[in-house]
Amino acid sequence: MAVERVLPTDVAGELLELTRELATKEVAPRAAEGEATGRFPRELFRTLGEAGLLGLPYPEEYGGGGQPYEVYLQVVEELAAAWLTVGLGVSVHTLSCFPIAEFGSSEQRGSLLPDMIGGELLGAYCLSEPQSGSDAAALRTRAVRDADGYVVDGVKAWTTHGGVADFYTLMARTGEEGARGISCLHLPADAEGLSFGTPERKMGMRSSPTAQVRLDGVRLPPEALIGREGEGFRIAMAALDGGRLGIAACAVGVAQAALDAATSYARERRQFGSRIADFQGIGFMLADMATQISAARALYLEAARLRDAGRPYSAQAAMAKLFASDVCMKVAVDAVQILGGYGYVEDFPVERYLREAKVLQIVEGTNQIQRLVISRSLTRD
Amino acid sequence: MAVERVLPTDVAGELLELTRELATKEVAPRAAEGEATGRFPRELFRTLGEAGLLGLPYPEEYGGGGQPYEVYLQVVEELAAAWLTVGLGVSVHTLSCFPIAEFGSSEQRGSLLPDMIGGELLGAYCLSEPQSGSDAAALRTRAVRDADGYVVDGVKAWTTHGGVADFYTLMARTGEEGARGISCLHLPADAEGLSFGTPERKMGMRSSPTAQVRLDGVRLPPEALIGREGEGFRIAMAALDGGRLGIAACAVGVAQAALDAATSYARERRQFGSRIADFQGIGFMLADMATQISAARALYLEAARLRDAGRPYSAQAAMAKLFASDVCMKVAVDAVQILGGYGYVEDFPVERYLREAKVLQIVEGTNQIQRLVISRSLTRD
Amino acid sequence: MAVERVLPTDVAGELLELTRELATKEVAPRAAEGEATGRFPRELFRTLGEAGLLGLPYPEEYGGGGQPYEVYLQVVEELAAAWLTVGLGVSVHTLSCFPIAEFGSSEQRGSLLPDMIGGELLGAYCLSEPQSGSDAAALRTRAVRDADGYVVDGVKAWTTHGGVADFYTLMARTGEEGARGISCLHLPADAEGLSFGTPERKMGMRSSPTAQVRLDGVRLPPEALIGREGEGFRIAMAALDGGRLGIAACAVGVAQAALDAATSYARERRQFGSRIADFQGIGFMLADMATQISAARALYLEAARLRDAGRPYSAQAAMAKLFASDVCMKVAVDAVQILGGYGYVEDFPVERYLREAKVLQIVEGTNQIQRLVISRSLTRD
Amino acid sequence: MAVERVLPTDVAGELLELTRELATKEVAPRAAEGEATGRFPRELFRTLGEAGLLGLPYPEEYGGGGQPYEVYLQVVEELAAAWLTVGLGVSVHTLSCFPIAEFGSSEQRGSLLPDMIGGELLGAYCLSEPQSGSDAAALRTRAVRDADGYVVDGVKAWTTHGGVADFYTLMARTGEEGARGISCLHLPADAEGLSFGTPERKMGMRSSPTAQVRLDGVRLPPEALIGREGEGFRIAMAALDGGRLGIAACAVGVAQAALDAATSYARERRQFGSRIADFQGIGFMLADMATQISAARALYLEAARLRDAGRPYSAQAAMAKLFASDVCMKVAVDAVQILGGYGYVEDFPVERYLREAKVLQIVEGTNQIQRLVISRSLTRD
Repeated sequence: MAVERVLPTDVAGELLELTRELATKEVAPRAAEGEATGRFPRELFRTLGEAGLLGLPYPEEYGGGGQPYEVYLQVVEELAAAWLTVGLGVSVHTLSCFPIAEFGSSEQRGSLLPDMIGGELLGAYCLSEPQSGSDAAALRTRAVRDADGYVVDGVKAWTTHGGVADFYTLMARTGEEGARGISCLHLPADAEGLSFGTPERKMGMRSSPTAQVRLDGVRLPPEALIGREGEGFRIAMAALDGGRLGIAACAVGVAQAALDAATSYARERRQFGSRIADFQGIGFMLADMATQISAARALYLEAARLRDAGRPYSAQAAMAKLFASDVCMKVAVDAVQILGGYGYVEDFPVERYLREAKVLQIVEGTNQIQRLVISRSLTRD
Repeated sequence: MAVERVLPTDVAGELLELTRELATKEVAPRAAEGEATGRFPRELFRTLGEAGLLGLPYPEEYGGGGQPYEVYLQVVEELAAAWLTVGLGVSVHTLSCFPIAEFGSSEQRGSLLPDMIGGELLGAYCLSEPQSGSDAAALRTRAVRDADGYVVDGVKAWTTHGGVADFYTLMARTGEEGARGISCLHLPADAEGLSFGTPERKMGMRSSPTAQVRLDGVRLPPEALIGREGEGFRIAMAALDGGRLGIAACAVGVAQAALDAATSYARERRQFGSRIADFQGIGFMLADMATQISAARALYLEAARLRDAGRPYSAQAAMAKLFASDVCMKVAVDAVQILGGYGYVEDFPVERYLREAKVLQIVEGTNQIQRLVISRSLTRD
Repeated sequence: MAVERVLPTDVAGELLELTRELATKEVAPRAAEGEATGRFPRELFRTLGEAGLLGLPYPEEYGGGGQPYEVYLQVVEELAAAWLTVGLGVSVHTLSCFPIAEFGSSEQRGSLLPDMIGGELLGAYCLSEPQSGSDAAALRTRAVRDADGYVVDGVKAWTTHGGVADFYTLMARTGEEGARGISCLHLPADAEGLSFGTPERKMGMRSSPTAQVRLDGVRLPPEALIGREGEGFRIAMAALDGGRLGIAACAVGVAQAALDAATSYARERRQFGSRIADFQGIGFMLADMATQISAARALYLEAARLRDAGRPYSAQAAMAKLFASDVCMKVAVDAVQILGGYGYVEDFPVERYLREAKVLQIVEGTNQIQRLVISRSLTRD
Repeated sequence: MAVERVLPTDVAGELLELTRELATKEVAPRAAEGEATGRFPRELFRTLGEAGLLGLPYPEEYGGGGQPYEVYLQVVEELAAAWLTVGLGVSVHTLSCFPIAEFGSSEQRGSLLPDMIGGELLGAYCLSEPQSGSDAAALRTRAVRDADGYVVDGVKAWTTHGGVADFYTLMARTGEEGARGISCLHLPADAEGLSFGTPERKMGMRSSPTAQVRLDGVRLPPEALIGREGEGFRIAMAALDGGRLGIAACAVGVAQAALDAATSYARERRQFGSRIADFQGIGFMLADMATQISAARALYLEAARLRDAGRPYSAQAAMAKLFASDVCMKVAVDAVQILGGYGYVEDFPVERYLREAKVLQIVEGTNQIQRLVISRSLTRD
């Protein structure tokens, strides 16, 4: 069942159409094997870059799509439905480009954005550390300024695309303790002193490497600084607001894929002389899943429209990420249930959706952190 | 906390502003006493009619607002937040006008719509019967055609505004068993042979009478027929699609009112030396409530935009009604919890919200019927 | 459907049998009118006392039943299923007797327990105050010791049986700030300086008065002290452990009554040509309700068996209260749903069950306080 | 935190002690590697057999433990907490022995039970087929009687221990369509014509083979029949009642293991200057998890006590299986959440618990089938 979308323009409709075609023909067919072998599908990001789908929300003058976030996110959703490694990869890449696109100098933008958007330079985002996950402002990676630029030492954890990215958008401490001592730096993958941990053995998204990023006396020139010194935490949080909408879109995509698989199965499978879809025990589950997914999609779209209108949307982004990822988890568990034993084996993709869903409740701020963001916005004096 | 709304036009913004003013000054202050005495606030519907808020989605040529459903529903939401009897009353009235507005002849429209929209004629909608609730097509009220028009006999149940409305939009059987034998008729309140049961003693919405409507040889002229004979069920279902969005908007309104009350209390109340809002046990509840409400609002708005775009939206309307009313119930239960003992007593409005919430899971198709509608749309061959 | 109980003795079986008979013949028939008029059924407590059902867990030498808590609680459950005002009244009375029964001198026991157990003296329990609900140890009511005993001043809030009880088990501050400065006192209803607020206008349990208890220079003799000075908070918490099991039993009773009503209706009501019980949409709801209720009952019974075995059971009592009252709330909401419109009106008792259920999530420690108790027991170093 | 258990006898206490020792020393240390390699730990079943833990509910005269089900199940729970492959293996083995133990002739019992109980003969249970899962009575495997016994043809699906068991308890059709044409047969693993599919590639429980069992002209002697011809479905359902309690116990075990891991982590991990256990956002999650687990345990124990008392317990067994496996799923998802990124990687066991939990909602009757069993018992005329 094609999703009913109310799109703002005809161009948006064409972009979605193009995305669905690529998702169906190029992305989805490679997901199962990719996840089985754990190989990162770097080439698909080039394909997306060539198709103009890697920089949708960024300015056209740098090769971007100049599209509203509302449209960009639905593209991410369709890609994630085909293969989360790709959909979430696009979201992380977009997040990693954001500081340069939004806070970078015109030199930085001019020299870097076109290749970032074109698919030549794949990005990663380095904020978390082993001891500072939810408490991001406590990070310890240090960038010491000297005459030639910065010398950076520290360890970043849980970095998506760690070891396969071409650049790392790095938050490091250049000053005092706490949020105000943090700066944002652009770190190319070939910098000396940069190394990577063995990729984590994860429950899902096994083709998307998550690794420690180790910085041992890495030298960066002064121009590596994005924005001003001490602005890093603010930049990181602004980037995350958009990133959280990306995660919400991914969650809706995975959930929709799970629902579609469960619906197809329920229409085919017969027991007790009927399609199991015709038993309310199954039919009502499908109805609840579809309802939750539609609500999650509508919620991230409303948040995106606030962003597109230039209005504050942090709390709404947190809500969208929280709600969509919780829905995705629940829907994936129920989709496996509808397939029964067939849902629990690798012959069908639904067990993969379940394993993928879980990570979305954790990344870019655990759902507990989202609740904190929301409750503070509700109750602050 | 004012709700963040992305409205389509400036006019919409002004309508919402006007609504909030009336809601705050005229509606909310009368709710507690109205519910305590059980008196129906007929005069408020005149006020709304005069303010141009009673026929928002209907054509301007008949005095309507010519507004998209997206805007109309947010007006209903704000009214319901102030007093459900009024918000739901507007929704039911709008539903009762729909058959004439959409399927009526130009004579019917011209002679009736202006007074319906102006607040002179308040409507009610008669579909359910004691033995046919969820199975609406099994209704038994019979309208027998003769030379002078129709003679109607039967009993309608659960009629909102039963006994206080000025007209009843009535579904009656003019032909065969089942959905195809049903017709839609316009029944003025002063028709001879029309009487009403004692209003139901309800858990909530006590100021809004719900009563049996009894038809004992009621004579109606041929012009009472709306649309064609046998079209009644189709008209009724189309009316309900819109009506369900109205219920969804009401549910969001009541839930928002409950959240606002709980948030205010949690910011004031101190225990263990802190505002209780600062305990995550309370703060996270508020965050979940706000998230669910935002999702419910976004969902009904997406459904409304489908309707406004002239696209099919039945399943989406069912989803919006189901989801919003379930959210409203849960939020109301949690809002009482946050106030503790103060939530359980009539000094605060939250216990009223809880009692009101429940009816929204039942009216205009129980949430089980909504699930049936949704599951069929998902799984039909 | 009679509940399947595994009872420890034949005597227990007879007590349950007797309880069910009284519940069916004496209690249930008076519930609807009692709640409508708001009259407290004082006489039913005498009946229960005469039948030997008021002091089941207390020693036989004082007229008690000498029964394990496991049995006492199932009696409370059956009474609450008939009328919560009575079931919860028995639980509160038992709680109010506990300090004397467990910590009282032999004089106190000998002179008071027989009448408490016999139904002559009905008890109330005064811990909460307007500003100290969840933070009970912050109470301000002060009992100043002088040569003749104590002079007590302060205000107690939310007292069940406030104004109709014959004695009040009172927590007051005799010493320092915090938990260690609190003592437990026996306060007869005829003490001078004792007065009561207007009973709260509550959403449910309207026949059971909840009122402020005001102490204005109330004089109590030295023998009013139960246990030692400064032991009051420990006594209060020990009493609440048992009291929470009583609330759990009440919650299971109300939930079972709601399930029974919904099941009966679902077996009778026909739509679309079948009993609605035969639609999985309804049947599965009933199954989930029954499952949750059985789990709640099993949980309070396990906690009671720990208590009966003399083992620590505070965390388990908190779990039982939390789980059972959350289940009761959910089941009551669903029971109304199954009856549809009939569930929302006073002709059936299910709307009453819903209104009653809510209070159980609040009293004797809100469910947030229960979670605090449980989480501390899990995570303390 | 050791689980608080109220055990019926000292012997039971010793059995639990012994189980915990074996679980800690022999079972748990092998789980991670076993799951990584997919090797079935056949030798552990011999160890358990030698320790007297394989036939706990069966008569002592055949080497069994003569223990109540209440005790046996807690042993299963402890084993499942260490490694589900073992705990569920014991449950399936016990289920497979049940027809002989309960319905077998004394020759069958005498010749087979001692080795089954001693760990020499490991069992499997063959009921489901590719086209008949939930609708078990529609099975097609056919056992045709001739002069020398039975010739069996067909395919069984989803057989736990398929390919590694020493005997298969087989349901096959010897007569008419439907439940009454089914018989129960004992099938040794070395029977000619017996072969096995490639083990399923499952999301979890990878060391426990699940495979098709193919019967191609398998000859069985007349003594292979357990009970009478046509009794097979009744035997199968009686076996499943007990088996469902075994699954419930497994679910409680896995959930408890997940809770213990999450609690330990929450006590160690510090963020924002505190143990994360001290944030109510985490602490309340732990409290809810512990509460649900305690309720699930109490529920299966109550059902077991009904069985031990010789009373009907089918509906209660279905409730226990349904509730415990739903709790296990939810708890596992939340446990991963509490560990955040650490929960999503294989360095900690919690991601394994999540993958294991899912299968428990599916096996031995999906949770939809349990709801059907329960709703029928509630609503039958």
